[in-house]
Amino acid sequence: MTDTHTCTLCRRGDAVYMRVYSGEKLCAKCFTKSIENKVKSTISRHDMFKHDDKIAVAVSGGKDSVTLLHILAKIESKFPKATLCAVTVDEGIRGYRDEALKLAAENCRKLGVKHVVISFKELFDIKLDDLVRLLTERSKCQTNALSPCAYCGVLRRRALNLATREAKANKLVLAHNLDDEVQTILLNIMHGDALRIARVKPALEEKHPMFAARVKPLSEVPEKEIAFYAYLNKIKFQSVPCPFAPTALRTDIRTMLNRMEERHAGTKFTVFKSIDKIRPALEASIKEVILQECILCGEPTTDEICKPCRMLRELGVC
Amino acid sequence: MTDTHTCTLCRRGDAVYMRVYSGEKLCAKCFTKSIENKVKSTISRHDMFKHDDKIAVAVSGGKDSVTLLHILAKIESKFPKATLCAVTVDEGIRGYRDEALKLAAENCRKLGVKHVVISFKELFDIKLDDLVRLLTERSKCQTNALSPCAYCGVLRRRALNLATREAKANKLVLAHNLDDEVQTILLNIMHGDALRIARVKPALEEKHPMFAARVKPLSEVPEKEIAFYAYLNKIKFQSVPCPFAPTALRTDIRTMLNRMEERHAGTKFTVFKSIDKIRPALEASIKEVILQECILCGEPTTDEICKPCRMLRELGVC
Repeated sequence: MTDTHTCTLCRRGDAVYMRVYSGEKLCAKCFTKSIENKVKSTISRHDMFKHDDKIAVAVSGGKDSVTLLHILAKIESKFPKATLCAVTVDEGIRGYRDEALKLAAENCRKLGVKHVVISFKELFDIKLDDLVRLLTERSKCQTNALSPCAYCGVLRRRALNLATREAKANKLVLAHNLDDEVQTILLNIMHGDALRIARVKPALEEKHPMFAARVKPLSEVPEKEIAFYAYLNKIKFQSVPCPFAPTALRTDIRTMLNRMEERHAGTKFTVFKSIDKIRPALEASIKEVILQECILCGEPTTDEICKPCRMLRELGVC
Repeated sequence: MTDTHTCTLCRRGDAVYMRVYSGEKLCAKCFTKSIENKVKSTISRHDMFKHDDKIAVAVSGGKDSVTLLHILAKIESKFPKATLCAVTVDEGIRGYRDEALKLAAENCRKLGVKHVVISFKELFDIKLDDLVRLLTERSKCQTNALSPCAYCGVLRRRALNLATREAKANKLVLAHNLDDEVQTILLNIMHGDALRIARVKPALEEKHPMFAARVKPLSEVPEKEIAFYAYLNKIKFQSVPCPFAPTALRTDIRTMLNRMEERHAGTKFTVFKSIDKIRPALEASIKEVILQECILCGEPTTDEICKPCRMLRELGVC
């Protein structure tokens, strides 16, 4: 008879993690291996990498991105023709990003990975802190002002594209985990924009030669398991949340999903797979967009002026 | 200056209902009118009825169906060529359905509406109570037995089709409300069967000449507002819930949605409208099914034997 505290995989080690949705009890070694295998299988199922890819990992310094960098460094060490580097965007958030930047750099040094840092200040001539100050002043006379996260999201996406290009990489790796992806799916539905869920997927092909393809090797790993992997493997990361917290709706969806997962183990996976079934239909219904050059910055865009330029112009920054 | 307790529509009556998602405060008269107008606009937007339709309303005796019968009787009184009748399925649930049946009959009498009652016992030679007993015995030796609701749903749908035909109606009206529809959408996603949301819509065309088209005029009215309409208009209905409660997952989704609605007024409407945007894509991706006659009962079916016959055969009933 197996001891109830013995790992159900190797039947030797002491179980340290109970994976409720699968019924497995895992020892530290098997748990670590299971996460790495999950990442490998996600990568291979979605054909994320070629043996000679130049891979840039978006590393914020937080739990997910730092952990992913460690896992990818391990995997890619077996592919000598592939290169791996980290790109970090410094939005300019005092008392938050500076600490995260240090941790990102420290992890890159430890892993021997090249680290490219790019800042809002050098790209857009404004730090996020100052942008938020501008927004706060504006919101006194305007009621329809967007949240800081809406601006930050658009500018960070642009910054990541530019950093990836600077790093001469053809793949941009994002550390979105299963929880992030499922939250985004429900957020889109609850925001009234269900068609957007077509874009919530593990691998997004490039839409223009100037953009690298974006891949998410952690998209099938629950957040909790990434945290436990980092803990077991003594990975250091920034744990302070961003002072400009995510929107109230995302926070509520997150709470609700965790509650559902607790009562119906596997809910997050089921939602994720459920959307897989309708994605082809949604993708087929979306018209292909033709990209042109932004008349202000030259980046590929659907309109005359790209979104980052439009946002910055509206704020009187550029 | 308007009194804070005055109806925001007529500016005369005392407000008795605060509609959080629209910011309206309504008096009893305006509230009642607003619900009836909402039903009318849903009917007209989805082209639910023709002036000479023969309409059968599925009346369980509960809040939603009885209220809808009252509203439709009012609307249809203006269309002399249309006929309205009620169809009730007696599943055979002692201490529950008998009470509901009385209330359904009472409301029909009051409104002068013909009432057709059809029972599981006469159609399938088994009451739901006995079917549940059979299932309980089975579940002792089988672990993958379906819930009573799964059987009841399939048999009730068949019974409603037969009752509609008996009533010579060409439209079958279901009293699903906004909450029901949004719950079903999320339930499908969380069950891993997102493609099914293509069928969650206010008007479903007939798939076969033997089936009446199914329409849901309450699908844009929140459950809470139907309850309040019934209360204001002194409509009597069965308020005891079915002893074979809905599945745990639906109950949890219901709680979660109510919580989200409380924190983000309008969430239910947004989800409902959000799905509208992807439905055409989903419908286009679904292959048309060819219906044949069930070799046992002759009803239209996709397989050789229809689902109700298959279920009853498995249970040894037919």
